[in-house]
Amino acid sequence: MSKFRIAVHITPRKGLLDPQGKAVSDALHTLGFKAVKNVHVGRYIIIETDSYDAITAEEAVTEMCGKLLANPVTEDFEIESAVPA
Amino acid sequence: MSKFRIAVHITPRKGLLDPQGKAVSDALHTLGFKAVKNVHVGRYIIIETDSYDAITAEEAVTEMCGKLLANPVTEDFEIESAVPA
Repeated sequence: MSKFRIAVHITPRKGLLDPQGKAVSDALHTLGFKAVKNVHVGRYIIIETDSYDAITAEEAVTEMCGKLLANPVTEDFEIESAVPA
Repeated sequence: MSKFRIAVHITPRKGLLDPQGKAVSDALHTLGFKAVKNVHVGRYIIIETDSYDAITAEEAVTEMCGKLLANPVTEDFEIESAVPA
């Protein structure tokens, strides 16, 4: 058993309303960053887990995303390669 | 003026309490993912902005992080290289 660290990016699905991104974009305009065209706000989750190998760790994290971390209706997720922690 | 896309990772500073990460970790244990040792929950922000070049775009986003996106007391941020959008 070794320890692996896996990062996950969860982003609002393209084309769906992203109210948090809109709010950040408006706030940036108010602060004077007029060149900002679009903002998307997602989550960045780092998971440290014990596993026999990197592949198994990545499979487990994919399952975690489906069961808890991401909303399959409104969000996309992307898993980075497992690195030894 | 061209359009650039820049991704930002914002993570809770190491050593500080991360209650959201603790909650996700506990929930994963409850779901049967007993091998999970630690979870950190941060934000992943994608900014599309007009700029003359990539360096200027990255500098603008660094300023946005300091002024709005990240909490300098409790969070660290990391900016990826600007890519043409």
